[in-house]
Amino acid sequence: MATRIPRIATREQLLKHAARRVPINPTARRLHTTTVPRRNPPTPTPRSNPQTPSKPPPPKTARVAPSSLLLTSGLLASLFVFSQTHDDDDHDDDTSSRPSLSPSPTTTSTSSRDPSLPTYRLSFIRHNHGPTSPEPWVTLGDKVYNITDWIPAHPGGDVILRAAGGSVEPYWNIFSIHHSPHVKEILEGYLVGYVSPSDLGPDGKPPPASIEDPFVNDPIRDKRLITHTLKPRNAEPPNGELDKSFLTGNEMFYVRHHMWVPDDAGEGEEELVVELPGGEERRYTLGELKRRFKTERVTATLQCSGNRRNDMTRHAGKTNGLQWGVGAISNAVWEGVRLGDVLRDAGLEVEKGGEDQRKKMHAWFVGREAYSASIPLAKAVEGTGDVLLAWGMNGEVLPRDHGFPLRVVVPGNVAARSVKWLSKIVIADEEATSQWQRRDYKSFGPNEGASPDWDRAPSIQEMPVTSAITGVWVGECVKKVPWMMGGGDNNNNNNNNKITSVGSGQRTIDMAATPQKVGFTAKPTTPTATPCPKTTPDKEPIALQGYAYSGGGRKITRVDVSLDGGATWDQAELVDDCSNPATPCYGSKSWAWTRWRYNGTLPVLSLPPASFPSTATAPLPPALAKVGQDCEDGFGRSVGLMGRLPNHKKQCTTLIVKATDESYNTQPESHKGIYNVRGNLATAWHRVKICPECTKGNGGKGGLVWNTGETYGCGFRKEAEEVREGMRAASESTGNGK
Amino acid sequence: MATRIPRIATREQLLKHAARRVPINPTARRLHTTTVPRRNPPTPTPRSNPQTPSKPPPPKTARVAPSSLLLTSGLLASLFVFSQTHDDDDHDDDTSSRPSLSPSPTTTSTSSRDPSLPTYRLSFIRHNHGPTSPEPWVTLGDKVYNITDWIPAHPGGDVILRAAGGSVEPYWNIFSIHHSPHVKEILEGYLVGYVSPSDLGPDGKPPPASIEDPFVNDPIRDKRLITHTLKPRNAEPPNGELDKSFLTGNEMFYVRHHMWVPDDAGEGEEELVVELPGGEERRYTLGELKRRFKTERVTATLQCSGNRRNDMTRHAGKTNGLQWGVGAISNAVWEGVRLGDVLRDAGLEVEKGGEDQRKKMHAWFVGREAYSASIPLAKAVEGTGDVLLAWGMNGEVLPRDHGFPLRVVVPGNVAARSVKWLSKIVIADEEATSQWQRRDYKSFGPNEGASPDWDRAPSIQEMPVTSAITGVWVGECVKKVPWMMGGGDNNNNNNNNKITSVGSGQRTIDMAATPQKVGFTAKPTTPTATPCPKTTPDKEPIALQGYAYSGGGRKITRVDVSLDGGATWDQAELVDDCSNPATPCYGSKSWAWTRWRYNGTLPVLSLPPASFPSTATAPLPPALAKVGQDCEDGFGRSVGLMGRLPNHKKQCTTLIVKATDESYNTQPESHKGIYNVRGNLATAWHRVKICPECTKGNGGKGGLVWNTGETYGCGFRKEAEEVREGMRAASESTGNGK
Repeated sequence: MATRIPRIATREQLLKHAARRVPINPTARRLHTTTVPRRNPPTPTPRSNPQTPSKPPPPKTARVAPSSLLLTSGLLASLFVFSQTHDDDDHDDDTSSRPSLSPSPTTTSTSSRDPSLPTYRLSFIRHNHGPTSPEPWVTLGDKVYNITDWIPAHPGGDVILRAAGGSVEPYWNIFSIHHSPHVKEILEGYLVGYVSPSDLGPDGKPPPASIEDPFVNDPIRDKRLITHTLKPRNAEPPNGELDKSFLTGNEMFYVRHHMWVPDDAGEGEEELVVELPGGEERRYTLGELKRRFKTERVTATLQCSGNRRNDMTRHAGKTNGLQWGVGAISNAVWEGVRLGDVLRDAGLEVEKGGEDQRKKMHAWFVGREAYSASIPLAKAVEGTGDVLLAWGMNGEVLPRDHGFPLRVVVPGNVAARSVKWLSKIVIADEEATSQWQRRDYKSFGPNEGASPDWDRAPSIQEMPVTSAITGVWVGECVKKVPWMMGGGDNNNNNNNNKITSVGSGQRTIDMAATPQKVGFTAKPTTPTATPCPKTTPDKEPIALQGYAYSGGGRKITRVDVSLDGGATWDQAELVDDCSNPATPCYGSKSWAWTRWRYNGTLPVLSLPPASFPSTATAPLPPALAKVGQDCEDGFGRSVGLMGRLPNHKKQCTTLIVKATDESYNTQPESHKGIYNVRGNLATAWHRVKICPECTKGNGGKGGLVWNTGETYGCGFRKEAEEVREGMRAASESTGNGK
Repeated sequence: MATRIPRIATREQLLKHAARRVPINPTARRLHTTTVPRRNPPTPTPRSNPQTPSKPPPPKTARVAPSSLLLTSGLLASLFVFSQTHDDDDHDDDTSSRPSLSPSPTTTSTSSRDPSLPTYRLSFIRHNHGPTSPEPWVTLGDKVYNITDWIPAHPGGDVILRAAGGSVEPYWNIFSIHHSPHVKEILEGYLVGYVSPSDLGPDGKPPPASIEDPFVNDPIRDKRLITHTLKPRNAEPPNGELDKSFLTGNEMFYVRHHMWVPDDAGEGEEELVVELPGGEERRYTLGELKRRFKTERVTATLQCSGNRRNDMTRHAGKTNGLQWGVGAISNAVWEGVRLGDVLRDAGLEVEKGGEDQRKKMHAWFVGREAYSASIPLAKAVEGTGDVLLAWGMNGEVLPRDHGFPLRVVVPGNVAARSVKWLSKIVIADEEATSQWQRRDYKSFGPNEGASPDWDRAPSIQEMPVTSAITGVWVGECVKKVPWMMGGGDNNNNNNNNKITSVGSGQRTIDMAATPQKVGFTAKPTTPTATPCPKTTPDKEPIALQGYAYSGGGRKITRVDVSLDGGATWDQAELVDDCSNPATPCYGSKSWAWTRWRYNGTLPVLSLPPASFPSTATAPLPPALAKVGQDCEDGFGRSVGLMGRLPNHKKQCTTLIVKATDESYNTQPESHKGIYNVRGNLATAWHRVKICPECTKGNGGKGGLVWNTGETYGCGFRKEAEEVREGMRAASESTGNGK
């Protein structure tokens, strides 16, 4: 066996295999308004590696050591359409590290040029060999390639036409899989000439300004969003906006893109193609969908599998991918038609076969250009699954950033399944699905004959339970908490920023005001104290708020809060937003997040003395010895001892939230226990460390302020600053700061 | 508000309230073959506390401090029919502490007797005032009571008739709620005379032999079961038998009873009553059910909410209830008819109203005598819910211990919902369900006006993900592991105790042989070594096996094993029992447990030197310093330091298993994080500490043996011994050892 098939195959082999096996994505040919004619026959690269295997090897991401594999198995990282079908992740690591469009290091010098080949002006290429021409060309550095014959074999489908008439560089920077010698080698087979010296800069390459920016037509986003990458745009709302209201405003809904936002789609212009297992196709215009099927609404939270990844990085180690805070999650009312209705209309016999069969079959959603994902057919068609083909969001037309004109919404599943800019749905029978899942890699890997890891851990569909703290108020700040203004048990029917009774003893909260968050803006709570107090006050009030969410439509049944690092717990109040007439929850199950809030009393903490040594070896102050168990991410372990470690400078306490859903599953205690190198499903208890400090300057008097720790308090001041700094830097390097 | 309603109400008030509100359980009147006529009007106790509140107070179990309340809310402990409906628990604490039938301390002396009342012989009472007489009497100590007028008001229904003609004492010992002054007070109102002095012993009480044993007709159980209580019987299979086969043998299936096993039911003799929301009733004999509806099979695991409770006790603190090991779980094929089919036939319009409505309505299952529980109607009627009314178990007639002649099987839910000896099903509309759930306690509790804790945490229905290690083999013992005999990758089609390929690269394991478990019988692995080795061998092999299970039909997608206390992890092999033609898995979802096995290599550990000090302060041996992080329940914390603590005597390592289900929920890391005083849902990572030791006696040579720790290794030697000792003691105290 081992001699027949090489263990390590080249990228090129993978590409060639993909070219043979995967049909061209037909929707991509409608990228620009006219259709590019298909070339026949497909011509693979002329300089291929002769050692062509019958089966490709596993991708490298699946070769991570088992001890770090938790939850990462089945996560194949390629961005090609064919391999994304069962990719659970949001593909962060393919995009996050390359936000800028700086040219790739493919520098050539004209001296190495083949003198037998002609040169072309960039304007000539742009006008005569663009996406709609019968002979599309691309450039890379100073070289010109005729990719006409390569297009049918291109694993990413006709997306390649997006680059036709210009440079492929910006696209290779997005689809980083191209940064490989083998890809270059393929391209070299299509060399037809060179860029005219008149179009080259002093470095022998076309100047950056001559390279078209694929993101030039991206929509303008709300400035409050915290941006992780600009191109493609990935951004989350700041904590203060995240769960201020039950429904996230469309402009504040987190943005997760792998590329540019399609700009040439018009309502009714595109057709949705439904392909049945037999290969029959049925086409629908958006107008038809709206007219012929019953319009439904579903209130559903979407959450990226990478939400809270930054938490995992901080508490368990480096992870690859966008370092989301707690905001890669948002909630909206979606409007559209039931996927099941459309599939039945298209001729799919969904009742045929049992539930088992429906779990093995998949509905595969192909987005415009290079993204697709699938869900089990059982979820796609079951009445209580509530999967929508949606065109509306919170009562408005679906914004371009969220899939205009049509997207899938798969409530309760990882948001990667809710494919935006939907162009095609393929229903795959068991065999095809099985092929996608196994990708013929069955008998490969270090343990030949055994199932490789990524075959033993199915892809993520439903999301596990999670929660986060998004607001903290301490001391005098508690007076500014909107839902505290109504008082503890003083129910009333005033909807203005107060606790409101909505029947059944439940209360709803309007958090319209944007309060001061302790993590963002520390306010002296005892401003007239002088000198600095030695400890925090007895019975210092604290208020917390946040969200909790579980996949699969499982309702949040309780949220527990600890103010002392996990030593003691109390139950938080769940906000019954679904009972609020203003925000009814549409759908069969609990697809929306649950907001919670809590108020309590902090333990007494010692303030650090002015001369508190940075390498403290002295006995701990009594108050700290009592509470200090949580000066790291404690839970009663590491008792007191951490306080003696050199890097421990402050007396702090850790606020924790954890949620339980109706299946009584709850969150893991630590990210160490669920660590995986991709940083997916970072669902451990959410911890925010807060520390008292004495500040002077208030007319010479000392005041007590509270801060989140230097590396704790995900989503709080320190993190927000870091993220903004990164955004600014990226913006400067590309000259695009919008 | 506080003045209107007393904060602490008496048990009697509760009883009185219940008497007014709850209908008598009609099925209980068929306890013996004739029916007892209903007496009218109901007469409440004549000596009631005058402070009768309009609403009863919360029961004490709900008053636990919030910090210890996790997962216990909603767990009301009364054993009365009316209050069990939403009781998630298996009611352990009501029975476990009273396995014997020793008389309660109600000693009276004849000198305190009312001389105006007559005396009766016990034989007279037995023959003339038994369950079928128009005037049932009971005795308590030397007193005789005519309970005729109390029966309609008795919160537990006509179960009280079980005691008629004899002493109530054995029943009060089972239903421990009666051990309260207020209950006694109620009974005193019905005093009609005294037991004749001829029937009293020297202590002024009837001799124990004169008191009928309600358990006299209990079935005889398999001697291999580990018995927690004899009367009622609660027992679990030992680890060696638990998951030896995919389907647990009927005789080894764990037994969870609240009382005696009904002995007077015959097939066809009893009728199942279905009561619809309007009050209409429909009756079915077992024969009718079998003839008129399609017979279905479902392969489903049942698990007690108290499974692994002993783990929580050991790792997090004292819990109330039966101290189950890892064996309060078993798996079987159930045969019967779909509950949904029967409900539709009975006239229930299940499609009426949405999913939301069906979640709010409940199907309430009433067992014969004093047990009932409910499930949301959505689960009861959905096609993929697979709820059965079952008469068959693993191809045999349902055994008496498991509900003969008819029981409910609710796959994926806590086993407390799978009511045995089913007599009635009540479909309750939203209002009635709501009443059960809220029990009118809405505005009570420490925070008047706020929802009390038990109203904020709904009852357990679906079970969260859990797993356990049930077999450990080390060193030479690994040669005896059945599924290791086939070799690592040597797939073959021989089904005899070897790894067997069943297609798709999956393997199934026949564990027919009962191997030596390291926890039970330590075997020298290096029997000829002399003197004692200083460390365990390099690359010492280890093999583990066990089970994993998640509720709600969620498939187990991966099981991870750590051999070093959580520092590193590896994936276990999942046994694909469902693909084995001998054990197909019936049903729409993954209702059965998943067995797993793992083989690996232990880290090198130091053996304790002969003079190893019990209060070691010396530096740790290097090998221990490297591995010793897990000498407690570590996970890399408490690093090394535990080795210096006085009670640390051995160099050990902790084996851990944790499972992940298809919703990607996983198990909590520690029981401290989910501690609740009832010890429910003890689903933390399962840990088994193993320790090397040098033993002599093998012809004077030293041999390396492995032991589970003294308090670790739930279900292993130490625990088995403790449990057997408890069983023996209980048996001796009652004279009933069967």
